Amino acid sequence: MTFAATILTLYPEMFPGPLGLSLAGRGLREGLWSLETVQIRDFAPDKHRTVDDTPAGGGAGMVLRADVLGAALDSVAPGRPVLAMTPRGAPLTQERVRALAAGPGMTILCGRFEGFDERLLEARDVAQISIGDYILSGGEMAAMTLLDACIRLIPGVMGAASSGMDESFETGLLEYPQYTRPVEWEGRTIPEVLRSGDHARIESWRRAQAETDTRLRRPDLWERHEGARVQSPSGARQRNGKQT
Amino acid sequence: MTFAATILTLYPEMFPGPLGLSLAGRGLREGLWSLETVQIRDFAPDKHRTVDDTPAGGGAGMVLRADVLGAALDSVAPGRPVLAMTPRGAPLTQERVRALAAGPGMTILCGRFEGFDERLLEARDVAQISIGDYILSGGEMAAMTLLDACIRLIPGVMGAASSGMDESFETGLLEYPQYTRPVEWEGRTIPEVLRSGDHARIESWRRAQAETDTRLRRPDLWERHEGARVQSPSGARQRNGKQT
Repeated sequence: MTFAATILTLYPEMFPGPLGLSLAGRGLREGLWSLETVQIRDFAPDKHRTVDDTPAGGGAGMVLRADVLGAALDSVAPGRPVLAMTPRGAPLTQERVRALAAGPGMTILCGRFEGFDERLLEARDVAQISIGDYILSGGEMAAMTLLDACIRLIPGVMGAASSGMDESFETGLLEYPQYTRPVEWEGRTIPEVLRSGDHARIESWRRAQAETDTRLRRPDLWERHEGARVQSPSGARQRNGKQT
Repeated sequence: MTFAATILTLYPEMFPGPLGLSLAGRGLREGLWSLETVQIRDFAPDKHRTVDDTPAGGGAGMVLRADVLGAALDSVAPGRPVLAMTPRGAPLTQERVRALAAGPGMTILCGRFEGFDERLLEARDVAQISIGDYILSGGEMAAMTLLDACIRLIPGVMGAASSGMDESFETGLLEYPQYTRPVEWEGRTIPEVLRSGDHARIESWRRAQAETDTRLRRPDLWERHEGARVQSPSGARQRNGKQT
């Protein structure tokens, strides 16, 4: 079964865009995944093809109408998760990416302006996803980002280009720093341990680097990682600071 | 002064891509921002145009070489922040976006494969940025996402399309839910308060909704928001759970 993506957008011409090149593009041409766009405007009920209206209660911008979005969504084949890209959504994680990539594909709703009428999200089974804590001009770039993350995990897409596992977040830690030839560059040499050929030492150095970098750069990830470690041997819930 | 973006990539043909359409595309055509791509491969020292090599110490994939990236970076006009898109980087925030958008632009290094030789990042003043805790096929999509977030804040790009301020993260909270006409859809009505015309009540309802949604959906944001609130009146540092 092919991973099938359907994008509901006001800018279908943005797709496949960057997803039509490199590994994702080759996978698309080889039929490892498929992409379909739906122009939301085609489901507007009036001849002016209106898709939005002013926010109830006032405020700047425009809100995408529930009736138009509902009709557009109902035109798409069911059986795949329906996602809306919005800063109000659950932060995207590699775990979520992995689960989505293993599924049949997805239908993605791309917002513009001030977002979607909330009733649409309640009335249909729409999962709200955020790719990060910043504001984009629309959901299209977020949808492409989500798709790119999923597509590289589809069997056959990456080939031998990468293991896909030994990387940041897959272990709950940031990835260790990487080096390659030349051995010396601008007076800086590759750390000696990496040139030792001693695989156990290399493994242990990389692990220590990943732990240090995660602790210093991402205390939030580190805390979660340490929590999981405390939890896993006994299955007991970790005590947090408030419970002392 | 125009906001100038330079992208160092192995896939210059991916740009401007979606950034050439909609508001960002109009801004680009109107000269409100500029975009230049640099093909990293043009700085390879050999006739095979090799840009990468196997990881020192072993492991899957390939690492982008410090000497090639250094030469590519040194070809770019100085005076703008240099950023590398990598999952090892600092998580992108709206605050960072706002600071970057107010500056002269940026030079963005896009990785592929297993990333950059760490020495390059140390030897040049490169800020590492992550758009989220997931793995992409390369830095290009991350660079486009960062650019899109910045470009919409450049004066003249958004016009009256949005206030740009009354949104998720700008207040430290998720945005309140939005509604628009029709008043009734599939038996669901717009909340009465939003149709009341009572601006104080609407304001207070929206504030309460934003707080509830942030608390339930994003306890991490909520904790930071509450911390800032405790901090601001006195300037004293907030006590955390561990200090009880």
